[in-house]
Amino acid sequence: MSRSINLAVIPGDGIGQEVVAQGLKVLNAVLPEDVKLETKEYDLGARRWHRTGETLPDAELEALKEHDAILLGAIGDPSVPSGVLERGLLLKLRFAFDHFVNLRPSKLFPNTATPLAGRPEIDFVVVREGTEGPYTGNGGSLRTGTPAEVATEVSVNTAYGVERVVRDAFARAQARPRKKLTLVHKNNVLVFAGHLWKNTFDKVAAEYPDVTTDYLHVDAATIFFVTQPERFDVIVTDNLFGDIITDLAAAVTGGIGLAASGNINPTGAFPSMFEPVHGSAPDIAGQGKADPTATILSVALLLRHLGYEAQAARIEEAVSADLAERDGTARTTDAIGDALAGRVAG
Amino acid sequence: MSRSINLAVIPGDGIGQEVVAQGLKVLNAVLPEDVKLETKEYDLGARRWHRTGETLPDAELEALKEHDAILLGAIGDPSVPSGVLERGLLLKLRFAFDHFVNLRPSKLFPNTATPLAGRPEIDFVVVREGTEGPYTGNGGSLRTGTPAEVATEVSVNTAYGVERVVRDAFARAQARPRKKLTLVHKNNVLVFAGHLWKNTFDKVAAEYPDVTTDYLHVDAATIFFVTQPERFDVIVTDNLFGDIITDLAAAVTGGIGLAASGNINPTGAFPSMFEPVHGSAPDIAGQGKADPTATILSVALLLRHLGYEAQAARIEEAVSADLAERDGTARTTDAIGDALAGRVAG
Ligand SMILES: CC(C)[C@H](C(=O)O)[C@@H](O)C(=O)O
Ligand SMILES: CC(C)[C@H](C(=O)O)[C@@H](O)C(=O)O
Repeated sequence: MSRSINLAVIPGDGIGQEVVAQGLKVLNAVLPEDVKLETKEYDLGARRWHRTGETLPDAELEALKEHDAILLGAIGDPSVPSGVLERGLLLKLRFAFDHFVNLRPSKLFPNTATPLAGRPEIDFVVVREGTEGPYTGNGGSLRTGTPAEVATEVSVNTAYGVERVVRDAFARAQARPRKKLTLVHKNNVLVFAGHLWKNTFDKVAAEYPDVTTDYLHVDAATIFFVTQPERFDVIVTDNLFGDIITDLAAAVTGGIGLAASGNINPTGAFPSMFEPVHGSAPDIAGQGKADPTATILSVALLLRHLGYEAQAARIEEAVSADLAERDGTARTTDAIGDALAGRVAG
Repeated sequence: MSRSINLAVIPGDGIGQEVVAQGLKVLNAVLPEDVKLETKEYDLGARRWHRTGETLPDAELEALKEHDAILLGAIGDPSVPSGVLERGLLLKLRFAFDHFVNLRPSKLFPNTATPLAGRPEIDFVVVREGTEGPYTGNGGSLRTGTPAEVATEVSVNTAYGVERVVRDAFARAQARPRKKLTLVHKNNVLVFAGHLWKNTFDKVAAEYPDVTTDYLHVDAATIFFVTQPERFDVIVTDNLFGDIITDLAAAVTGGIGLAASGNINPTGAFPSMFEPVHGSAPDIAGQGKADPTATILSVALLLRHLGYEAQAARIEEAVSADLAERDGTARTTDAIGDALAGRVAG
């Protein structure tokens, strides 16, 4: 654990700036005095693209490599054609820095609104593969715009890529009290990728006899997310399925305003990146209405990744306590950040 | 509207036989006396595969073509390797008979259990593309079983295939009181397929100025399914996204025991196939515990497809009335079928 953190900050678009400010506030409040925090802001996102046409220039990609970690707010704006910033910036970072573990915890905190009747106990973690699957940009379009167009998207899955994320998920499952790991895929239809995932899962499972394993098709998994979410402990799944089920997981655990994520390279070869699951929400940007909790919980994941376990836990406890005392009165982005900064400093 | 129905019946595996028997019971009860119903049963599924190694021989495929429609119970058993029956039978039928409209209505009937608090009003229809996307079986595996394996799955999307299903969905939306159509895709990541879908959707939308349109990424759509399902009227989406969201839709509207589906070829070139969304549920097979309602609602879709609108509506009203009177006492498969047959005959 280093006594300094050299953090890259990409506030991005919409509410990104506002929520990141609160994340940094809490980070400053929780860090021990002797830890030196340096931050450098990177101006990337929709405004930059409008101004210069750039999404992520090589120089900035190189500069980002020098940091210990990256905190990202939100990227995207309706004024930018769909896909430009997602592929050119957000996914480019995940791929360039080989963020193969996309970590997304889901917990139903006390006193938090859930659309589910009966308030089931929900406390699971999705380990979403982050560098393969249908997200590789592999594919194309032939005779574009004509009645004879053919558009393809290729899901690419390698033994190398699947095994490393499956191993990571088994290790995480083993470290949790319930020690249960569920593989989510669709191996009855996507048979080639499905067999690779299932065989790899079964092979690694043999090395973790104390971890209980389970397999669910992705369609069935969505059913259990709403009827029996307590059955899940750790889930490992492919990039696209992980995208879909983690939004659903966020919805049933109090909404996207609380969902944190880490794009992690466990080898440390490149900086890992932490971001709320939510988008830039341009409709409420600049109004102090955004809930910064997801960003603040992402800061906890960042701290844990850098070895500051006690500080990460303190943030999570503060969020839990803060949510428990929320009485439905609307608070500003800033007020929530202040409250949490106060708690972790205390 | 023909005064005879020549129906192929594929009971299949697990609870398939039981639920199909109730579907036929209700079909017999609802049909006018002068409509001649002929049925022919096809022995396809896990038992057949174990016996002969066949999933769907050419002769049977040819014979099935001669029918006006197909009623299918459920296919699949844990004793058969994953993918064999799905690809070799179920999907083979959908592809061979060009079932490009996979129609899946979702309605929260009165007095039906939903995992959602507050019992929102839910009444929408998903038009899932049925012959393209990641379901084409296009893909492969290189160096299978080695640490250097690469497995791919190709999502194939054609202007021809996308436009016909989008047109079908617009026509369905226009025929409903709310006249609203939502496209669900992931066009910020799957940019090639996404652009084809979105451009086609926008082009056809111009011909339906009275239909309100909307676009949602699939991950966001799953959120609205649990937080605001009342926002949906008709949804059109690709084969895989449709698979995932219709299971979730079933879960929030009383469970997979009530979810009906039609694999429809609107041109009439081949027989359409109707089946409950649920699987073969081997754990409860043969015990009279399966709810045949999804199959019976699938029979309603079948009747509507063949032009028997009044009879289809009668079944749907019977189901609605039956559910309204359910008091939580467990009823056998047979008892539910009897109750519904009694109501539609009345
Ligand atoms: C914005 C988009 C590229 C991204 C994804 O699909 O991964 C988002 O939905 C997420 O889950 O982080
Ligand atoms: C069994 C499987 C092939 C099928 C599908 O994926 O379409 C099922 O899940 C469904 O939704 O009808």
